[in-house]
Amino acid sequence: MSGVPVQRWKCVCAYDGRAFNGWQSQPDGRAVQDVIERRLKWIFGRDVRIHGSGRTDAGVHALAQVFHFDAAWPHGAAKLLGAFRGGLPRTIQVKAARAVAPGFHARHSAKGKTYRYHLHQGGPAGPFEFPYCWAVPGPLDVAAMRATARRLTGRHDFRAFSAFGGVEPESTVRHLRRLAVTGRGRRLRITAEGDGFLYKMVRRLAGALVAVGQGRMTPAQVVALLDAGQRTAAIPTAPAAGLFLVRVRY
Amino acid sequence: MSGVPVQRWKCVCAYDGRAFNGWQSQPDGRAVQDVIERRLKWIFGRDVRIHGSGRTDAGVHALAQVFHFDAAWPHGAAKLLGAFRGGLPRTIQVKAARAVAPGFHARHSAKGKTYRYHLHQGGPAGPFEFPYCWAVPGPLDVAAMRATARRLTGRHDFRAFSAFGGVEPESTVRHLRRLAVTGRGRRLRITAEGDGFLYKMVRRLAGALVAVGQGRMTPAQVVALLDAGQRTAAIPTAPAAGLFLVRVRY
Repeated sequence: MSGVPVQRWKCVCAYDGRAFNGWQSQPDGRAVQDVIERRLKWIFGRDVRIHGSGRTDAGVHALAQVFHFDAAWPHGAAKLLGAFRGGLPRTIQVKAARAVAPGFHARHSAKGKTYRYHLHQGGPAGPFEFPYCWAVPGPLDVAAMRATARRLTGRHDFRAFSAFGGVEPESTVRHLRRLAVTGRGRRLRITAEGDGFLYKMVRRLAGALVAVGQGRMTPAQVVALLDAGQRTAAIPTAPAAGLFLVRVRY
Repeated sequence: MSGVPVQRWKCVCAYDGRAFNGWQSQPDGRAVQDVIERRLKWIFGRDVRIHGSGRTDAGVHALAQVFHFDAAWPHGAAKLLGAFRGGLPRTIQVKAARAVAPGFHARHSAKGKTYRYHLHQGGPAGPFEFPYCWAVPGPLDVAAMRATARRLTGRHDFRAFSAFGGVEPESTVRHLRRLAVTGRGRRLRITAEGDGFLYKMVRRLAGALVAVGQGRMTPAQVVALLDAGQRTAAIPTAPAAGLFLVRVRY
């Protein structure tokens, strides 16, 4: 493809987290990144590195993860999607692709992300629900969860909600623009929207809200842990299965 | 459990059809019936035969399949559900159980059934959709599908929509109470409600409606095949993946 300029491509993809070992490339080759890079190697005949907006843990689903890569592709976006589709497992779908300015970076250019937990309360989850929700013994005190969510919303040092194991961030201050508990009956959703999230922060926000909903923690206890600003085992980490990366904002 | 009377138990269950080799007991032991009967053998310490409202093909899902069995269980329905839950895979859920009159029979007492196809048109199905829908190249002419559905609704000899392979019925006349195409955009649903369905009849009704929606058959051709009353290869059989048994009426 001499003469075809190298361009930066921005892609949006969905995946079922059960089928992969998280987003980020792993030695076992079973991460979403590994599977997409193998497909790109087949398409372009050379190694193509992709850069995601951020990692998702093993088991976490994505409705719209974003990644970019650089390659010379003269056939347009629709054919690029077709080339992905022809060789990716059905548990990954590249939904959109477009050439972007070379300054775009899937992680560095991201201005915000939205995650959502699907909760199932008051009984076991059925065959069509259990892979995509967190089944919690209920009934949950939704009013107490909402009161706690209001106290957590805003710009705070969220160190208490981070976990060891990720890249150590320069700052643990994040702007949590929205933390909402919606839905009713058996199906509830926790939506978290912010400029960025610390390692396992979404899972620990959800873990704290459900602990409050179940009466195992009080709203005041959660706020006191936030204010103390120390990592703590007192905040439970919600399981990955019910979590979806919903949107990356640029 | 001497002294405990044998009772007839009516149970309602949901299952993900991908995980099993259809409803009806198979030599490989991978049918839904096999899996439930193995669990009952563990619970009661003896062989317990279950009787379903009817078979579902391999790959067909159920939201509410009904079966019955006879056994002496002195601990009540809630504990029976717990005993099922403790040993069934998560791809089967027994959702309800109650003791019924000994004259009740899951198949013979059934007064009607409702099936539903989930269709996905105009693009490939995503990771969370493909196991539970029939992805059809579109756009579909929904008005033509509805016109055809209206002509098929009612009491007719549906022999043309039956397939070889099932138990040969005494009569091929069935009362199709409702055949509806609902939804809009990418997601459509075909709902079929009737007093009973011939072997593969639902899959061939859906196959005919989609063929009309794609312009591969005309409504008049479908009606002519119905009127001819002969089994025919001209009517396509829809795939199992998008089909759900929604309800059995008694």
